[in-house]
Amino acid sequence: MAEDQTILQDEDELNAARVTAILEAVEAADAVRLAELIEPLHAADVADLLEQIGSADRRALLHMWSGEIDGDVLSELDESIREEVIESLPREVVAEAIRELDTDDVVDILEDLDAPQQGRILDALEDADRVAVEQALAYPEDSAGRLMQREVVVAPEHWTVGEAIDFLRESEHLPDQFYHVILIDPRMKPVGYATLGRLLSSRRNIRLRDILEDSFRTVTATEAEADVAYMFNQYHLISCPVVDAGGRLVGVITIDDAMNVLDEEHEEDMLLLAGVGEESSISDGIYDTVRGRFPWLFVNLIAANLSALVIGQFSGTISALVALAALMPIVASMGGNAGTQSLTVAVRALATRDLTSSNAVRVVRREAVVGLINGVAFAAIMALVGWLGYGSPMLGAVLGAAMIVNQFVAALAGTLVPLFLERAGFDPALSSGTFVTTLTDVFGFFVFLGLASMVLI
Amino acid sequence: MAEDQTILQDEDELNAARVTAILEAVEAADAVRLAELIEPLHAADVADLLEQIGSADRRALLHMWSGEIDGDVLSELDESIREEVIESLPREVVAEAIRELDTDDVVDILEDLDAPQQGRILDALEDADRVAVEQALAYPEDSAGRLMQREVVVAPEHWTVGEAIDFLRESEHLPDQFYHVILIDPRMKPVGYATLGRLLSSRRNIRLRDILEDSFRTVTATEAEADVAYMFNQYHLISCPVVDAGGRLVGVITIDDAMNVLDEEHEEDMLLLAGVGEESSISDGIYDTVRGRFPWLFVNLIAANLSALVIGQFSGTISALVALAALMPIVASMGGNAGTQSLTVAVRALATRDLTSSNAVRVVRREAVVGLINGVAFAAIMALVGWLGYGSPMLGAVLGAAMIVNQFVAALAGTLVPLFLERAGFDPALSSGTFVTTLTDVFGFFVFLGLASMVLI
Repeated sequence: MAEDQTILQDEDELNAARVTAILEAVEAADAVRLAELIEPLHAADVADLLEQIGSADRRALLHMWSGEIDGDVLSELDESIREEVIESLPREVVAEAIRELDTDDVVDILEDLDAPQQGRILDALEDADRVAVEQALAYPEDSAGRLMQREVVVAPEHWTVGEAIDFLRESEHLPDQFYHVILIDPRMKPVGYATLGRLLSSRRNIRLRDILEDSFRTVTATEAEADVAYMFNQYHLISCPVVDAGGRLVGVITIDDAMNVLDEEHEEDMLLLAGVGEESSISDGIYDTVRGRFPWLFVNLIAANLSALVIGQFSGTISALVALAALMPIVASMGGNAGTQSLTVAVRALATRDLTSSNAVRVVRREAVVGLINGVAFAAIMALVGWLGYGSPMLGAVLGAAMIVNQFVAALAGTLVPLFLERAGFDPALSSGTFVTTLTDVFGFFVFLGLASMVLI
Repeated sequence: MAEDQTILQDEDELNAARVTAILEAVEAADAVRLAELIEPLHAADVADLLEQIGSADRRALLHMWSGEIDGDVLSELDESIREEVIESLPREVVAEAIRELDTDDVVDILEDLDAPQQGRILDALEDADRVAVEQALAYPEDSAGRLMQREVVVAPEHWTVGEAIDFLRESEHLPDQFYHVILIDPRMKPVGYATLGRLLSSRRNIRLRDILEDSFRTVTATEAEADVAYMFNQYHLISCPVVDAGGRLVGVITIDDAMNVLDEEHEEDMLLLAGVGEESSISDGIYDTVRGRFPWLFVNLIAANLSALVIGQFSGTISALVALAALMPIVASMGGNAGTQSLTVAVRALATRDLTSSNAVRVVRREAVVGLINGVAFAAIMALVGWLGYGSPMLGAVLGAAMIVNQFVAALAGTLVPLFLERAGFDPALSSGTFVTTLTDVFGFFVFLGLASMVLI
């Protein structure tokens, strides 16, 4: 009872107590209780619930509750389990759920399915919607054309506020969400837009063209969705008309879609930097997880063997002074960390377009200076450690010198590698740890052992 | 001339050609040309321009152009240079610029300034605005109360669509951006909201209470802004009323502010993971950059020395078989990379709340299995390398065994460390590389050299 009250207090929240209660209801095959617990949840939370429970529980839950699932839940589900969920549902249920959705959400779901499932879902749509979805799928993947909704609210240039309001009152099929009335010329080219706030607060006889927003911008349907998201964030847009190559209006993108893309781009950068497949998800199964991570680790394995070969060249030196073996990972590790710092800042700044050809030279110079300063500071510390800890002032000096050189190289590599990748047309986050840390590892071992073999042995 | 045309073609874009032309105009002290080049830019792009040029150029530019700067540019500037810019501008210009802004933007600027500058800016505000700003600053840092705008559009519960529209037409001071009319009861408690789209498309005699949105939610002014941003993203909100502890309406947060917070949270996670101060920016000077990075590298230095101590314990073993020195970094490096993979996925999933107490056990179990699978695969490869490359099947076996153990530990540590930090109330990204890679380094060296000393020597 006490537990029940907690769950019901936060009426619409998905908390651990509710998840437990839901799993108990599934276990007890109590469909009434299950519906009672899921019913008040937002579609996004139902999707989270399905992602968080194990696949056996998921199957059982869907079996008991499948009739109730709506399109929004499918739309919110992570790609990693969406296919599984769709497959486990009766076809009529999926068809029914899909039909409720706006075309841009249908496109989003279809993109990630395999061909037979795509076909089945397309067949379930009404003719007009199917054509709209197929047209959207004709635009390149990750383009504005895939992201936009085709339902737009437009008015001719010469209309007044009163005419626009009367038109809206008589429209049967307005989009769920719209924030502007877009003004178009006779050839369907958008010429400006008025916010609904301005429309509502202006007198009926005011001309729409006199209350247009300064912020007006359009995007072309083939533009990359990442660029669109950047534009929304940079210019604080709330919606943006999409035009075809001829400049004619074909749809509109709203801020919630842009926010979603921005979120995905962030996630991608973060995962790529860590050397994890860009589409990894916490709800992936074991097979998908291994497949996402193994290749990156394999590349690192080759890189690490390269380091081993470098070290192998100095086995005579190490035999002569075995303390070198203990100290060499310090130089490499510090280089790797400093390189990762520079790399992360550079990748982030490239993503937010704060690092451009206008300031690249200055940024690289600053990184180099920072690397040198840190290098000198750590060199001083490690020279002391080498001297006092290992009883050899010369060992300390070699350690310090290697530190300075490697910090400098790390700072440069961390900035130049992503800049170079960007220039060459790759995702700069792709450099990940691997590139930069291989460089700093190999270089760190080489400089330290090389100097040691010259000076100490 | 050709260059001029390129610049003018993209009339409102900040590209490299324009930056160059602007710097030339500054150099030539050509104020007219400078104004011509900056004038068409969006405030956000002017801010980017100021961030991207060097500080000497920035001073010269502001000196020539300062009269024109408006509040939006100050508001868009990165914190790292905002203080410098404000200090270099004449006081009247700053006062004038600040007065144009909405109170939430003023709060955003004030937060990061030191006390004397804060005082000067507060003095420049009109009385009503100053009170509003001071009230906002009374809310905790990074809370909804700091984020909200106080300008709200409300209507009594019993109003009709017609009454609301008439009221809006007669209002003198509507907010720049608003997307809902909020219904309040006589005690100022919000009871629901209607989108402007519904308002515009409904007949005048319809009651507002009959066109309310299902999505209605409120936040308390003291709630963390990160939670607010999560809510906007999760539930696709466009605006959200903010209430005080008594449930009375005190302001509203709009999606553009939430998008901004989401963006900052991402940046913070990414920078923390890489061991960079969370407020680092590409436009930081050398001193701030060193200050942001040194402490993290210093922690790593201590950790690396720990590894060195572990290795030092096995100097006898290494002397006996110097190939161990070359191979040991492979075990450590692979562990570090695998740990970083698990860590990044876990930190991201905690941020998006996809990793919760409901699925933590299952995720940890999966990570452990993935670590074992990868470990066995790499063990097989490295056993071959040890055998064929270094001519010792036993060395290969030791290498393989160490690999399996360390991959397993890395997968566990990468997931458990951020889970533990989150549970203990810290930012899970704080674990950064350092925690996990120290663990995998120390452990990797220990297992490999320990096994080698038992089996091989």
